Amino acid sequence: MIKHIQIADSRYQLDGSAGSDAIHRDPIYSYAVTQLFDDSGITGTGFAFTLGEGNDLVCKAAQYYAQQLIGKDIEETMAQFGTLFRKLSNDQQFRWLGPHKGVVHLALASVTNACYDLWAKKREVPLWKLLIDLSPEELIRTVDFSYLEDELTEEQALELLKSQVQSKPERMSIIDMGYPGYDTSIGWFNYSDEKVRENCKKAIESGFTAMKLKVGSADPERDIRRSHIVREVAGEQVKVMLDANQQWNLPQAISICGKLKSMNPYWIEEPTHPDDVLAHKTLADAIAPVKLALGEHVPNKVIFKNYLQTGSASFIQVDAVRVGGVSEFIAVSLLCKKFGIPVVPHVGDMGQLHQHLVLFNHISMGHEALFLEHIPHLQNKFVHPAKIVNGVYQTPQEPGSSCELLDVKS
Amino acid sequence: MIKHIQIADSRYQLDGSAGSDAIHRDPIYSYAVTQLFDDSGITGTGFAFTLGEGNDLVCKAAQYYAQQLIGKDIEETMAQFGTLFRKLSNDQQFRWLGPHKGVVHLALASVTNACYDLWAKKREVPLWKLLIDLSPEELIRTVDFSYLEDELTEEQALELLKSQVQSKPERMSIIDMGYPGYDTSIGWFNYSDEKVRENCKKAIESGFTAMKLKVGSADPERDIRRSHIVREVAGEQVKVMLDANQQWNLPQAISICGKLKSMNPYWIEEPTHPDDVLAHKTLADAIAPVKLALGEHVPNKVIFKNYLQTGSASFIQVDAVRVGGVSEFIAVSLLCKKFGIPVVPHVGDMGQLHQHLVLFNHISMGHEALFLEHIPHLQNKFVHPAKIVNGVYQTPQEPGSSCELLDVKS
Repeated sequence: MIKHIQIADSRYQLDGSAGSDAIHRDPIYSYAVTQLFDDSGITGTGFAFTLGEGNDLVCKAAQYYAQQLIGKDIEETMAQFGTLFRKLSNDQQFRWLGPHKGVVHLALASVTNACYDLWAKKREVPLWKLLIDLSPEELIRTVDFSYLEDELTEEQALELLKSQVQSKPERMSIIDMGYPGYDTSIGWFNYSDEKVRENCKKAIESGFTAMKLKVGSADPERDIRRSHIVREVAGEQVKVMLDANQQWNLPQAISICGKLKSMNPYWIEEPTHPDDVLAHKTLADAIAPVKLALGEHVPNKVIFKNYLQTGSASFIQVDAVRVGGVSEFIAVSLLCKKFGIPVVPHVGDMGQLHQHLVLFNHISMGHEALFLEHIPHLQNKFVHPAKIVNGVYQTPQEPGSSCELLDVKS
Repeated sequence: MIKHIQIADSRYQLDGSAGSDAIHRDPIYSYAVTQLFDDSGITGTGFAFTLGEGNDLVCKAAQYYAQQLIGKDIEETMAQFGTLFRKLSNDQQFRWLGPHKGVVHLALASVTNACYDLWAKKREVPLWKLLIDLSPEELIRTVDFSYLEDELTEEQALELLKSQVQSKPERMSIIDMGYPGYDTSIGWFNYSDEKVRENCKKAIESGFTAMKLKVGSADPERDIRRSHIVREVAGEQVKVMLDANQQWNLPQAISICGKLKSMNPYWIEEPTHPDDVLAHKTLADAIAPVKLALGEHVPNKVIFKNYLQTGSASFIQVDAVRVGGVSEFIAVSLLCKKFGIPVVPHVGDMGQLHQHLVLFNHISMGHEALFLEHIPHLQNKFVHPAKIVNGVYQTPQEPGSSCELLDVKS
């Protein structure tokens, strides 16, 4: 039984220009952390990610949700978590502040993730192991399918999961092989050309076969120059992604993406405003075969559904510390599977939680094991930091979701 | 010069079942109030609306924005307000909590509205008068057009306003006539059938020719029965609107709206999730010629642009205490004008601020003077309550935007 809760506001100053992009020039990576203390002495930890200012608002909202869990048994709670998620996310006064987006939804992510962590710790297994061992029926009951009915009912989701059961054993080999990573940190926005060049070399030496450069400069020539530097150093076989962090409006995006085509990007990420589903559709049609990726600022499954319906995104970067936690991450992954679109999470969690979720997506849902973003900047803040060897995430073995932070005391 | 600021968390318990709808069974109408104190002794007041829980979060975010106004001259600020709005709404750390939605955007609404109020008070005119007297160039500079460029550039907006200048004098007659109102309070969700019947009679006796009923019951038969009661009492000439407050998923909405057709609703409001642009498009096509209205939960101009591009909404209910205040309300109204869609605001402000804005929309933009929602429940909380005579809003004459609250001291 959950006997008490604690919310912590943890902020971490980054070194130099790390983390900078076209919009966020000076971020402070921050977590609104929920801890659920079980009367058996086990603590569940979950968090949402912010860039500093306002992390306290998310903490305050998380307090509101988390206190509703006091007195609950975690096994009973998770047996019907979809119902609880629906109830919490539609709290009749609080939902006005969203609904299902912004501060309140980030807070719900924090609390939801703490529930999944506690669940796995009670069962003494890593979260990926817990999730792949659930039956399709048990899994479905952790998810709220409301407002997805026109594309994916609960029954259809159940069929989808069942259809993957037989082939699960083949996909278990990923556990030993590890999940491939890609390097996001070669080309933060404020890095000099020289530093990008060096980082690119280092990434290749470290075994990465995919990497990402920040673009979205006021001067498109800078973007073009830097993207060609990366291509030149990386060679033709390496996947190079470009990330504009919403910096362009639609006419600019059409023009600049056209010019970036020549360096053969694997995808162009967040070209424009994350709410603008139709602009992404127009852009995708205009620049095909160049592909778009997006999702780090998409707050919920309903908007992801719209993106999938238009076919504008070729890669969905849902982030479990942005949407309503693991539960909604699963809902979005199911939707993506239905539409045949790969899930390549944005890792506001630095990959700690997502290293579990991508294993689950691959094994239980049959999603392609493409690669998972790797950002090393907070590695020394975690009790069990993700391990990347030769560009590959090593499968975590400790119980839970790897989200405990050293500076957040139990 | 703004010398200090103050943020107030004001909550008002409603009587009985007033304010109840399909989702919000027990709301506490609340305002996150920003006051800007000018060194000339004048105070600008603005607010955002919430349903109670979490109003404090909006206050805290408003504090963050408002403190950035200290030391600024209001005339200089408003001469380039669009630039300031863009800067504030894209604050590089805070925008992660949106962007442009949820708690932070509600907070920006509160602060923005206080700026417009202060501006009008300094000029000693009601806000509607200030706005209609601005030149098209001055108006445009109060608005941020970013991410609208594919549909409405600053230059196109300027042309649109200029094209309406010559016919402005004809539309000034609305000032003396007053702006028609419609009655939202005949049929709150929890009211009994008998009370709906009585309220409907009273509304007609009070001169209203349009009124709204809350639907979205778990039992569609209840909705159908009650809607026919209103039609029967009101007669065929009265416009009757039905409001489902997002209660249906798409398959339900298609089915139930089909059944509600027979009572000839003027519109069906918020049939499903406010983020689901494509579901509204599918629904609108399925139930034509029945029309949809929406907007009270749409947080920003980008999503409104998508709704307008799909042609799914026949009435846009943008609310200046939900989007980023008067400035973004104007942006959305300009977009609507371009698409030929009427603006019929949702009035989280109880019509206090919007009575100014609809006059401006009609006179300066040439929008049809359809009607403005009327909700009387907080009438006695305002220093200058909106006056409705014979179903018509009487044009406010006091300087400012009519948003001062009796319990929020200067």
